[in-house]
Amino acid sequence: MGKDFPAVVISEVGPRDGLQAVSAIMPTAAKLRWIDALVASGIREIEVASFVPARILPQMADAHVVVRHALTHPGVTVMALVPNSRGATAALEAGVHKITIPVSASAAHSMANVRKTREEMVEEVRSIVQLCRDFHLGVKVEAGISTAFGCTLQGNVPESDVVSLAEQVVAAGVDECGLSDTTGMANPAQVRRLFNLVRTSIGDKTGAAHMHNTRGLGLANCLAAYDVGVRTFDSSLGGLGGCPYAPGASGNVVTEDLVFMFESMGISTGIDIAVLIEARKALQDGLPNEPLYGMTLEAGLPKGWLSNRGQHD
Amino acid sequence: MGKDFPAVVISEVGPRDGLQAVSAIMPTAAKLRWIDALVASGIREIEVASFVPARILPQMADAHVVVRHALTHPGVTVMALVPNSRGATAALEAGVHKITIPVSASAAHSMANVRKTREEMVEEVRSIVQLCRDFHLGVKVEAGISTAFGCTLQGNVPESDVVSLAEQVVAAGVDECGLSDTTGMANPAQVRRLFNLVRTSIGDKTGAAHMHNTRGLGLANCLAAYDVGVRTFDSSLGGLGGCPYAPGASGNVVTEDLVFMFESMGISTGIDIAVLIEARKALQDGLPNEPLYGMTLEAGLPKGWLSNRGQHD
Repeated sequence: MGKDFPAVVISEVGPRDGLQAVSAIMPTAAKLRWIDALVASGIREIEVASFVPARILPQMADAHVVVRHALTHPGVTVMALVPNSRGATAALEAGVHKITIPVSASAAHSMANVRKTREEMVEEVRSIVQLCRDFHLGVKVEAGISTAFGCTLQGNVPESDVVSLAEQVVAAGVDECGLSDTTGMANPAQVRRLFNLVRTSIGDKTGAAHMHNTRGLGLANCLAAYDVGVRTFDSSLGGLGGCPYAPGASGNVVTEDLVFMFESMGISTGIDIAVLIEARKALQDGLPNEPLYGMTLEAGLPKGWLSNRGQHD
Repeated sequence: MGKDFPAVVISEVGPRDGLQAVSAIMPTAAKLRWIDALVASGIREIEVASFVPARILPQMADAHVVVRHALTHPGVTVMALVPNSRGATAALEAGVHKITIPVSASAAHSMANVRKTREEMVEEVRSIVQLCRDFHLGVKVEAGISTAFGCTLQGNVPESDVVSLAEQVVAAGVDECGLSDTTGMANPAQVRRLFNLVRTSIGDKTGAAHMHNTRGLGLANCLAAYDVGVRTFDSSLGGLGGCPYAPGASGNVVTEDLVFMFESMGISTGIDIAVLIEARKALQDGLPNEPLYGMTLEAGLPKGWLSNRGQHD
């Protein structure tokens, strides 16, 4: 375990998506220890912060410090979320390897989340790509299509809107376009259908699956995405977080459970699940009053886990 | 919803598997109301009791009363679990439509659960099949291979043992042979592989998937089983139950979440999920101190659920 070249990338979003969803503010030193603990487990992609004004998200006021610290870990892709060019400029100055931009497929969610239309967000994406090309060659840009599987504000989101938006952000120059079940409305059949449709349109620029566990389908939806070729999965340690702008949405996929699913299937994540479970301590120390989740932890690893795992190595 | 011919059978095991796992004894009248509520939701197969000595399982002392009541619902398959011929005789006298017999793939679990070797259990199966053929033609016999995906006592369970046992119970005359993840150790890759192997050996006598949600993989494992042709799924309302003889095992798949997954995928269960959620009241009335689970209930049905569902009808 951890020795193979990973077959899937587990992209940890807790330090951004998780922290953004809770009202408590984690001290910077605790964030750094948490990130160190995640890296120690073998996690190699972390969304460490979002670059937004501190008056809007005081939890992220130390984003540049967190990025600079994360950059000290060799081999780790340091990501940040940015909603616009101003945020991208700050993230790029801090030195991130990868930028992710949320683009809502739901018109209503787009206005609620970033106060821009979908078309205006595509223009932001285009500007950010240009910024990278002009001044930060090598930095990757990802668009994450939020509410891709449904929206708590507008309800159904047409699949043609998602495919069209994927085509537009690729035309705007992104390296990857992922699909997010921001509101926990996805089902496995839809996940397979929509990722297949998007892949037909944008090919290998099809990016990560960001699933939620709102109605218990998080892992089933990740499995469905894996089945149709997705190899990068967003999740958060202890299931911290959700989207605060989508009423009723809750519950990121729990990283520990996701890693357990893939490793038990013999699909290498490069992550040592025992060390990953240890990383919860660093998270809980920084947010002592926040509930954490995880069924693998509650049940314990199955008897014979380590010896069986040895067979894959 | 509920108007289509169901594409999958949700076999509710709460009144047997669930009640057997809790120490509280549900009053008979409450059991009957619970069963009525399950039937009202559209559930058409219920494991209503197990026929074992009352000194071993006092929760099941009223099994024959429960069976007789369940039989008053037309179109409902009334099942009971029996561990041996004596239990089968009592179940058949009560009038069940279907008998299920647990046969452990793990030698250690077999001794712990029924104090018989696997070979002795196959002989029990043979006797019970003969009993049906002699005196109760038309009653179906199912063997459920428990610990098929791993055992908390012995650890790994060889897949060849499971396939061999499936062949033996089919040779002994059962109508169906299902696979049970008694201990919550299954993963989706294993579920697909093992059901495919068993189907290669015993063809359309391959029966239900009985998955647990011990480590959060319950729905993903049901999806995996569906993908390889399984069409009957065991689950329990509110996730009640587990196997008391497998240390650390817990958590049946939650019927409400399973129905939500299939219905959201457009796979008809014949069950009205809103009425199913109502049935929790009858269960909770009968077991006021028992925790119930279910993420669909906690999150609520997604916006637009009923109108979207209309498209499938």
